[in-house]
Amino acid sequence: MSQDLRIAVVGAGMMGADHIRRITTAITGATVSAVVEPDAARRGAALADAPGAQGFTDLDGVLASGLADAVLIATPGQFHEEALLAVLAAGLPVLCEKPLTKEPESSWRVVEAEMAGGKQLIQVGFMRRFDREYEQLRALIADRAAGELVMLHARHRNASVPASYVQSMLINDSVVHEFDVVPWLAGGVVRSVEVKYPRRNSGAPERLREPILVIMELDNGVLVDVEMNVSIGFGYQVSTEAVFEQGVARIGEPSGLQLFQAGRFAVAEHADYTTRFREAYDRQVQAWVDGARRGVVAGPSAFDGYKVAVCCAAGVEALDKEGPVTVDLPVTPAFYAER
Amino acid sequence: MSQDLRIAVVGAGMMGADHIRRITTAITGATVSAVVEPDAARRGAALADAPGAQGFTDLDGVLASGLADAVLIATPGQFHEEALLAVLAAGLPVLCEKPLTKEPESSWRVVEAEMAGGKQLIQVGFMRRFDREYEQLRALIADRAAGELVMLHARHRNASVPASYVQSMLINDSVVHEFDVVPWLAGGVVRSVEVKYPRRNSGAPERLREPILVIMELDNGVLVDVEMNVSIGFGYQVSTEAVFEQGVARIGEPSGLQLFQAGRFAVAEHADYTTRFREAYDRQVQAWVDGARRGVVAGPSAFDGYKVAVCCAAGVEALDKEGPVTVDLPVTPAFYAER
Amino acid sequence: MSQDLRIAVVGAGMMGADHIRRITTAITGATVSAVVEPDAARRGAALADAPGAQGFTDLDGVLASGLADAVLIATPGQFHEEALLAVLAAGLPVLCEKPLTKEPESSWRVVEAEMAGGKQLIQVGFMRRFDREYEQLRALIADRAAGELVMLHARHRNASVPASYVQSMLINDSVVHEFDVVPWLAGGVVRSVEVKYPRRNSGAPERLREPILVIMELDNGVLVDVEMNVSIGFGYQVSTEAVFEQGVARIGEPSGLQLFQAGRFAVAEHADYTTRFREAYDRQVQAWVDGARRGVVAGPSAFDGYKVAVCCAAGVEALDKEGPVTVDLPVTPAFYAER
Amino acid sequence: MSQDLRIAVVGAGMMGADHIRRITTAITGATVSAVVEPDAARRGAALADAPGAQGFTDLDGVLASGLADAVLIATPGQFHEEALLAVLAAGLPVLCEKPLTKEPESSWRVVEAEMAGGKQLIQVGFMRRFDREYEQLRALIADRAAGELVMLHARHRNASVPASYVQSMLINDSVVHEFDVVPWLAGGVVRSVEVKYPRRNSGAPERLREPILVIMELDNGVLVDVEMNVSIGFGYQVSTEAVFEQGVARIGEPSGLQLFQAGRFAVAEHADYTTRFREAYDRQVQAWVDGARRGVVAGPSAFDGYKVAVCCAAGVEALDKEGPVTVDLPVTPAFYAER
Repeated sequence: MSQDLRIAVVGAGMMGADHIRRITTAITGATVSAVVEPDAARRGAALADAPGAQGFTDLDGVLASGLADAVLIATPGQFHEEALLAVLAAGLPVLCEKPLTKEPESSWRVVEAEMAGGKQLIQVGFMRRFDREYEQLRALIADRAAGELVMLHARHRNASVPASYVQSMLINDSVVHEFDVVPWLAGGVVRSVEVKYPRRNSGAPERLREPILVIMELDNGVLVDVEMNVSIGFGYQVSTEAVFEQGVARIGEPSGLQLFQAGRFAVAEHADYTTRFREAYDRQVQAWVDGARRGVVAGPSAFDGYKVAVCCAAGVEALDKEGPVTVDLPVTPAFYAER
Repeated sequence: MSQDLRIAVVGAGMMGADHIRRITTAITGATVSAVVEPDAARRGAALADAPGAQGFTDLDGVLASGLADAVLIATPGQFHEEALLAVLAAGLPVLCEKPLTKEPESSWRVVEAEMAGGKQLIQVGFMRRFDREYEQLRALIADRAAGELVMLHARHRNASVPASYVQSMLINDSVVHEFDVVPWLAGGVVRSVEVKYPRRNSGAPERLREPILVIMELDNGVLVDVEMNVSIGFGYQVSTEAVFEQGVARIGEPSGLQLFQAGRFAVAEHADYTTRFREAYDRQVQAWVDGARRGVVAGPSAFDGYKVAVCCAAGVEALDKEGPVTVDLPVTPAFYAER
Repeated sequence: MSQDLRIAVVGAGMMGADHIRRITTAITGATVSAVVEPDAARRGAALADAPGAQGFTDLDGVLASGLADAVLIATPGQFHEEALLAVLAAGLPVLCEKPLTKEPESSWRVVEAEMAGGKQLIQVGFMRRFDREYEQLRALIADRAAGELVMLHARHRNASVPASYVQSMLINDSVVHEFDVVPWLAGGVVRSVEVKYPRRNSGAPERLREPILVIMELDNGVLVDVEMNVSIGFGYQVSTEAVFEQGVARIGEPSGLQLFQAGRFAVAEHADYTTRFREAYDRQVQAWVDGARRGVVAGPSAFDGYKVAVCCAAGVEALDKEGPVTVDLPVTPAFYAER
Repeated sequence: MSQDLRIAVVGAGMMGADHIRRITTAITGATVSAVVEPDAARRGAALADAPGAQGFTDLDGVLASGLADAVLIATPGQFHEEALLAVLAAGLPVLCEKPLTKEPESSWRVVEAEMAGGKQLIQVGFMRRFDREYEQLRALIADRAAGELVMLHARHRNASVPASYVQSMLINDSVVHEFDVVPWLAGGVVRSVEVKYPRRNSGAPERLREPILVIMELDNGVLVDVEMNVSIGFGYQVSTEAVFEQGVARIGEPSGLQLFQAGRFAVAEHADYTTRFREAYDRQVQAWVDGARRGVVAGPSAFDGYKVAVCCAAGVEALDKEGPVTVDLPVTPAFYAER
C-alpha cells in the first residue's frame, strides 16, 4: 500500500464537495487527483480544497488522462448510467452515490454491463451500512440472541427539505435508504410496498402530502413500517426499533452532552445528516478506498442498487394507490454472491 | 363528605380481589361494604381483606340489602350486561371493569337503559386515562405546543398470556385499551381498523398467530399503528409515540433506579400491569369514588364503552380479512356531552 | 380497623395544610378530626379542607377534648419539643415533621421522655425513606448484588429558596435529609462532617455562600459527598449515585414524557418537592396511619431524629471551619432496636 | 499538502503499535516512515503493520537518517526526557504520549529546552481534549449559557488494572488526565490537591487501597472531585458532571444500541479506553499531523505537561497525607501564550 489511490470525483455539488473534503482531510490511502465538473465556479472551489488535483469538464477527459485509479460519482441520479458504463468500460473501481440509477431498467443495464465485464467494480453509496449502530443491530439480528426478528419500526424525520423536493422524492430520495438497509439488516427480500397517509402536516410545502407511513413485507415474514416525515422542524432523526421474538432493540437514539437547564433535562438532536452520519460517510469511503486498493468491493453492490430501484418504482406506484404493490425481484445472480 | 362511600364489589377473582385490597388500603372516602361472589372460597378470602364487609352470592341480594352506595363490577365480561342493568335499575353509581359488555348490541342496550334512567351512572374501567403520562400527552396534544397530532405509534407488549387467552383476545382484551385511549388522546373517532401479520413469534402458544400490527384511521386523519405482542418474554411494556407537525413525544419509557453492572447500564422493565399501572388503578378508583360522592361520573362513560365495543367487533373481523374494516359509529348523544 | 384514625393536625401553615389535604383526599383509614392553629385565618382555611374537623388554638385543648387518636405536628421546629412532650404525656402516636427538634439537647430530652413512657410513639417526617427509588437502592445495598457499598454521591438542588432561608439552613433544612437517609441506606453511623466551598453562585441571595460540598464519613468506611445547591434555578433535583465494589446505581434521574422539539430531546425536571416527593409523602403518612392503628411506629424514630440533630450541629460547625468535624453518637438504646 | 508527513514512531509496545495502526489505517496526510524499538520481535511486528517503514534500534539512528519529518514518542515515561531533548535538538515536531516526563524537574528541563529553541514543537498526548463531548462541555463553560462553572464531579472507573499498576499510578497514570483536562475545561489553575479514602474495594489487588476521592481547588474557585476507581469490574467509564450557576451538564453517559431483554432496558458500557476514546485518539493524531504540516502545535503544550507533572507530584504526596497539598505553579511564560 505504498501508493495512495488516486480518485477522480465526478460532480462538485454539495455531495461531491463533501467527498472531496472528506478524502482530503479524513481518509487514509487516497488523494483526489481529479475533479470533473462542467461548472467552472464549482470546479474552482472544489480544486481549492484538493491540492494537487486537476480539473476536467467531462468524465471522458479524466479517463483518457490516466490520472485516476478509481472514480467517485456524485452527480444527480439521471447522469449515473452513462458515467457508470464509462467507468466500467475503463475497468476502474467506482463509488456511486445513491441511487445506482433512477429506474429499474437503467439499473439493470448497469448490472448487465458489470457482469459482462467479469469483475465487480461498483459500490453504491448507501452509507447507513457503515453506521456503527446499524452494524450492531445487524449483528444482533444475525446472532438471534433475542430470537428471530419479527418487525422493524423505522423513522426518518427531516427538519425540512429544499424547494426541489417533490412528492416522489419521499420514496426516491428518502425511503430509498430503507429499501437498501432493511433487507441488509433483516436478511430477506422486499415483497410488497404500501403507503398510508396520516393527517397532512400543515407546515409541509404545499406540493407535498406528508408525512407518509410506508409498510413493507419481506419474504421472510418480517413486517416493516417506515414513518417518512420531511417537514417536522425539530431536527433530523433516523432511527429503527427492531422487534424480536424475545426482546426489542433501538438504534438512532439521542446521545451526547446532557444539559439540565430551564426546567428540563435535554440532549441536542441532530440538525441534518452531516452530523448524524458523519462517521458512516467517513467509514464508507475508507472501506471503499481500502477495498479498491485490494481489488474488492466492500459495500452495497450494483445488484443491491438494482433491487432498491425496483422497490422505489413500487413505492412511487404505492403513493397513488390503495393497498400493497407487489415487488418482483429476480434471484441474485451467482456473480453477486452475498458476502 | 363525612360518610364513606359503601361499595359492593361484584366478583372476587384476581381483578375483584385487587380492587378490594385497593379500596381497603389505598382509597380514601370509601369502604368495601359487600362482596358478591358465588364461589365460597373466593368470597371468604376476599372478606378477610375487607373488614366489616358482608358476603353475598348474587347481586340482587346486596341491592336489596341497602348496604351499597355504589357498585364495582369485576366479573368476566359476559356477565356485565345483566349486572349493569340491575345496578342502573337500583340507581347506583357503578364502576364496571372493561369491557362494558362483549358485543356492540349488548353495550347499546346498556347505553339505552342508562339514557332512559335520565342520569349518568356508569364509569368503565379504562384505567389508562388515569396514568399521569397519558394525561400529560393528552394535554400536549390539546394545547398544540408542537402543532397538530399527526400519528400515534403504540406498543403493547406482554411477557406472556394465560392458557385461556385466544386469538380474538388480542383485540378484545388487549387492543381494547387503545380503542378507548386513542380517541381520548387524539380527539377523533375511529373510522377503520386493519390487521397486518408479521412473522409469527415461534415462542407464542400454538393457538396464537401473533404479534399483529393493528392500523386505525381516525376521522380527523390521525393514523395509528399498534404493535400488539403477547409472548415477548422480556417484560410488560405499554408505550406510545405521538408524532406532531413539529415534534415527537413518547410516554411509557423505562424509569427508576439505574444500574451499571456486568458491562452494561440497565433499568428494570415492568413485569406486568400491576406495577406499570398501579398508580393509574388507584387514581381511577379514587376519581370514581370522589365522583360518586359528588354525584358525577369522572371517567369513561357507557357510550365510550359502546364505541370501544364497536371497534373491537371491527378489529376481530379484521383479524381474518385483508385491508381495512370500516367502523360505523353514531353521533354522540347529547346525554353524553363530551367533558 | 373499622374505625378511622382521628388525627389532630398541629400547625396549618404550608406543610400542615398539605397534610390536611393529603389525609382528606389520599389517605385511607384516617380523618382529620382537629386543626390546632392560633392564626384564625389559617385555621379557617384549613378547616374548609377538612369537613367535620374542629378548630383549636392550642394543643392542650385538643388533647383534653378526646377528639384525637393521633397527632401530626407541622409547626416550625422550635415548637416541637413542647408539643412532643405533651403528646407523649397523652400517650398518643405522633408524626412530627422534621426536625425532631432544633438542637441535640432538646432532641435528647424528647428521647428520654419517650423511653420513660415505655412505648415508642414518635415517627419523624423524613419522607425520603418512603420514596420507591430510595427503597430500591436500600434493598440493592442490603443484598450486595453489586458488592459492598463504597461511596455515595448525593445531589440536592433547589431552584431557589425563600427570603427566610439563611446559611445554617443549608444544613438544618436541607442536608438534614441526608443525615437521616444516608445511614438508613448505608447501614452505618456518621463519624465526621466537613464542608468545602466552591466558587459562590452569583445568583444566590447575598446572605448565602453556596453551593457547598458536604463530606461525611461513616463508621463503616462509606464516604459520602453531598452537593448542596439552593439557587440553581433550573429545577428541583434530589439524586444519589451509589458506588459499589462492582457497580454503580443511580436514583432520582429524570423520567416521564419525553419530547423531541426545537432541536432537542427533553424531559421536564421537577420544579419543587411537591411533585418530586408527592408519592413519598403520601406513603409516609399512610404508613404512619397504618402503624398507628396497629400500635407500632413505621418510620424514623425519635432516636433517629436525635442522631440527625447531632449531625446537624456538627454540620453547622463545619460551615465555619476547615477540615472535618467529629460526630459523637451514643450507642443505640435497646429501646430503639433497629428494625 | 502534496507530501505525507513522515513519522518516526518511538516505542512499539501496546500504545506504539496502536499509533502505528492508526496512522496507517485512519490518518490522512501521514505515513509511518520509521519504527524505533530495541526489541526485535516487537519491531518486526510493528513493521508488518507499516508498509514501507524502516526499523531502528535507537532514536539517534532515525534522526540521523533524515527519514522523519516528525516523531511520535510512545515509550514509557522514564525515557521521555532524553528522547524529547534529542527531537528538540533535531528541530522536529513531536507528539509525546502522556506524561511529558515523570517528575516536575525533568518536565521543566524539557520546557526550558523548547523555549531555548525558540519554537514550539511538543504536543503532549492528553487525548481527552479531542473527545467531542469534552469539546462541547468546554464550549458550554466558555459561553456561560448556564452561568459560571462552579463545580466539577469527575468519575474515572476502570474494570481492572494490570499487575504493574501500583498505588501512585492512581495519580500518575489515571488522575493525570484530569490534571490536564480540568484546567482546560474550567479555565483556571490547580491550587491544591487532597485525597480521601472511602471503604476499600475488597476486590482490588492487595497492593492497592482504592477507590479514592481526589479533591482539587482551582484558583478561580471551581471545586473538583474525582472518583478514581480501578477495580470496579463492570466496565470503563470516564464521565464528568459540570455544575453551573444555573444548570448542570453531563458528559460520558452511555449511548448506542438499546436493548430491552430479560426484564430490563440496557445499553452496553465500554470495556476499556480503546472504544471509549477511539475517536479522540484518531482526532488527536490527525490534529497533530495537520498542525505539524502547518508548523504549529495543535494540542496540549510542553508547559501543560509540566503543570500536570507538578499536580501529579502534589497528588502523590496527598495519597499519604491528610488535608490539601498546595500546588505552586509559575505564571505561564509568554512563549506559551494560551490559544
